[in-house]
Amino acid sequence: MNREEIIAKMKERVFNANLQLPEWGLVQLTWGNASEVNRDLGVIVIKPSGVDYKQMTPDQMVVTDLDGKPLEADSYRPSSDLPTHVVLYKAFPGVNAVVHTHSKYAVCWAQAGRDLPCYGTTHADTFYGPVPLTRHLTETEVAEAYEVNTGVVIADTFKEGNLDPLAVPGVLVQGHGPFTWGPSIQKAIENSLVLDEVCHMALETEAINPDIQPLPQYVLDKHYFRKHGANAYYGQK
Amino acid sequence: MNREEIIAKMKERVFNANLQLPEWGLVQLTWGNASEVNRDLGVIVIKPSGVDYKQMTPDQMVVTDLDGKPLEADSYRPSSDLPTHVVLYKAFPGVNAVVHTHSKYAVCWAQAGRDLPCYGTTHADTFYGPVPLTRHLTETEVAEAYEVNTGVVIADTFKEGNLDPLAVPGVLVQGHGPFTWGPSIQKAIENSLVLDEVCHMALETEAINPDIQPLPQYVLDKHYFRKHGANAYYGQK
Amino acid sequence: MNREEIIAKMKERVFNANLQLPEWGLVQLTWGNASEVNRDLGVIVIKPSGVDYKQMTPDQMVVTDLDGKPLEADSYRPSSDLPTHVVLYKAFPGVNAVVHTHSKYAVCWAQAGRDLPCYGTTHADTFYGPVPLTRHLTETEVAEAYEVNTGVVIADTFKEGNLDPLAVPGVLVQGHGPFTWGPSIQKAIENSLVLDEVCHMALETEAINPDIQPLPQYVLDKHYFRKHGANAYYGQK
Amino acid sequence: MNREEIIAKMKERVFNANLQLPEWGLVQLTWGNASEVNRDLGVIVIKPSGVDYKQMTPDQMVVTDLDGKPLEADSYRPSSDLPTHVVLYKAFPGVNAVVHTHSKYAVCWAQAGRDLPCYGTTHADTFYGPVPLTRHLTETEVAEAYEVNTGVVIADTFKEGNLDPLAVPGVLVQGHGPFTWGPSIQKAIENSLVLDEVCHMALETEAINPDIQPLPQYVLDKHYFRKHGANAYYGQK
Repeated sequence: MNREEIIAKMKERVFNANLQLPEWGLVQLTWGNASEVNRDLGVIVIKPSGVDYKQMTPDQMVVTDLDGKPLEADSYRPSSDLPTHVVLYKAFPGVNAVVHTHSKYAVCWAQAGRDLPCYGTTHADTFYGPVPLTRHLTETEVAEAYEVNTGVVIADTFKEGNLDPLAVPGVLVQGHGPFTWGPSIQKAIENSLVLDEVCHMALETEAINPDIQPLPQYVLDKHYFRKHGANAYYGQK
Repeated sequence: MNREEIIAKMKERVFNANLQLPEWGLVQLTWGNASEVNRDLGVIVIKPSGVDYKQMTPDQMVVTDLDGKPLEADSYRPSSDLPTHVVLYKAFPGVNAVVHTHSKYAVCWAQAGRDLPCYGTTHADTFYGPVPLTRHLTETEVAEAYEVNTGVVIADTFKEGNLDPLAVPGVLVQGHGPFTWGPSIQKAIENSLVLDEVCHMALETEAINPDIQPLPQYVLDKHYFRKHGANAYYGQK
Repeated sequence: MNREEIIAKMKERVFNANLQLPEWGLVQLTWGNASEVNRDLGVIVIKPSGVDYKQMTPDQMVVTDLDGKPLEADSYRPSSDLPTHVVLYKAFPGVNAVVHTHSKYAVCWAQAGRDLPCYGTTHADTFYGPVPLTRHLTETEVAEAYEVNTGVVIADTFKEGNLDPLAVPGVLVQGHGPFTWGPSIQKAIENSLVLDEVCHMALETEAINPDIQPLPQYVLDKHYFRKHGANAYYGQK
Repeated sequence: MNREEIIAKMKERVFNANLQLPEWGLVQLTWGNASEVNRDLGVIVIKPSGVDYKQMTPDQMVVTDLDGKPLEADSYRPSSDLPTHVVLYKAFPGVNAVVHTHSKYAVCWAQAGRDLPCYGTTHADTFYGPVPLTRHLTETEVAEAYEVNTGVVIADTFKEGNLDPLAVPGVLVQGHGPFTWGPSIQKAIENSLVLDEVCHMALETEAINPDIQPLPQYVLDKHYFRKHGANAYYGQK
């Protein structure tokens, strides 16, 4: 495929992923955005800002360079969260797609200001340990470059926590909501779904038993490595 | 367009908005009503009272003057909450549409008798600060003119709280439920959706962390003014 | 219409009402039943027991006399809860239809063993005051005639509480679930929907504010009598 | 029917049951599996591992012997939980189908580490008493044979609790989620639905009344034996 064909395919995938978010109940109105990067080609493809999902078409997806600068004439304005995606692509080399939603239960944990504990194998199958919460941005960080600095605090959270973004493919931005990512855009949106589901489960788990402890580490290990890495044996060969 | 054509368009929009409310899960049975005003023309268009949504047609929408007096012969009876809408249109000059629902989580906060705190950016993107709760109507206010006085206590709540109804486009009427509004009927029903969503999120946020504090003011400012006012940069030009 | 035609219409209505229950999310699998009585004709029509809703047809509805004795040859077995319906029709003269479900939130209140308080106008529009909880049946009552005695404790609850079954058209049977009723089968199933909705709202209302008090009596009066009785002004003439 | 025809029918039923799980909201993505055994024929039929439900076909169902060894050439890989199913079929002679899901509320109780109490007749109609929680597997059990030992702790839970797996057709595996079963695959998936529903109800029941006690034993007996055993009188003859 030539460059043009690759970008057309990316637009198609980004379009479809953005549509799946409201279908899965993860996005209301226009509250979400998904993007994909191709580092070899030097392009990011992302949803346009504030466009109604029902009227959106694949060709409206916005193509930018790796710094988020639109590359096509007469392009739509990209999602206002693009600068966050740009920072994440630079900080997380193995990540090829980023998704942001305001899905209900992930937002609740982000608003509540707590890391999401790992209480069970549903969580462990996708996230290798707690999903971290970022700190609040400072007033200066907000004023200077809100979206860029949102990406920076996410990257810092992973660096300071010594976390592998491919093993823990998501984060809770305090007072805001979730970002997830993955090696493909399909995985990235599935991770949004899983994160919201396990956020809901964790909340009700604590309601049923306020003294509950996280899943034992050896069960977490087993479930995560059953699905990931060299010794995975879940799914088809 | 002439007067007749403008009113026909209003009926179409009011009809569609009233149908979207049950589609979005905000209205059960006939528990909701949406209206639109055209002050130049001196007309309000509102849903008829207690008509099944499945049998409703655009021409059944009721046309009244700015005092709520039906203008068309053989008109259906307007929604019993029309007097509340009339008061709000008089009190809030920039408001062109009003919506009332019994959506689940907004009703819960209204019944619980608390202002809705702003815990995150999902809230801040639409409501610039807490969504206020009205006081209960007095026994005399109920007896004398229940629906009119519901409008009066809403208007008083905004006046006493020195709140801009376009910056906080909704209210919780104590023991009853939400009213929302906006510059257009589309915005007004979207505000109903957002209000219910953030009411649900706030409730679960408090369950996850009972000591949670509201969103810092500077993040609230950032998110609200990213979408509203002269320096907004969300959406397409 | 002759007797045969009237019964055919009843079967059609009872069939449709029973189908609406799963459509509205009030019934899972076969956990519900709705019936209608015609006292002049001396017949009750009720859903057959344990038949899959997807395969059910109107002619499978079971016709019985006012004591619950099947009147048609080769009839299906009536819902096992028929004896409860029979007792209610005898005890509540103005009631022409009875509905039983295991709808989620009404069951939760029934299991929790509490009357449902009236916290807002959504409740007051349909139920004039708290929805009462029955006591548990005694071991003897269960052993002797479980379904009959379920009807008896419901009737006793209304008698002892001096409650009008048309003003409070529903009950929570302790440890079991809701029964609702009404002047028509359409009203009776709508009352099931309202009861489940207000049960959910009441639960979340208490979560938001554990010290919440019931709706003031004068607001309850206003809302109930706005929709019911000689001075009602909700809906079309 | 010959062996081939019987297996074709089993594949059809297992396929349909696996599709019903996401339709009923009990399975997200590929998080579930249902199987059926025919002991006379010496075969188990189970869902393939990690295949997208939208692309799955009946002929992809995997046929194994009673030890879980695939019997057909070029077969798909069976669900990674097959060894658990194998142990359950050996331990529970009357059980002809096993279902595993990560349905939301059953997972919450499994994560919370509590037996599910019987609070009402919705529960009692299907589960004769509390639904038991297994202990956590030990580190050694996980390392040696995770899926096999999951089956072993389930079987042990029933043996130690002196429980009849046909009277209590389900279990909560601690930190993981539910398994249900039954005399047929249709019953087994219905039991998954009921288990999730009563898990949700129990959680909200405790929220409404933290001091609630389980259903009296005589009501539990009545409801369970109304639907099961020699004296059942629910449903058609």
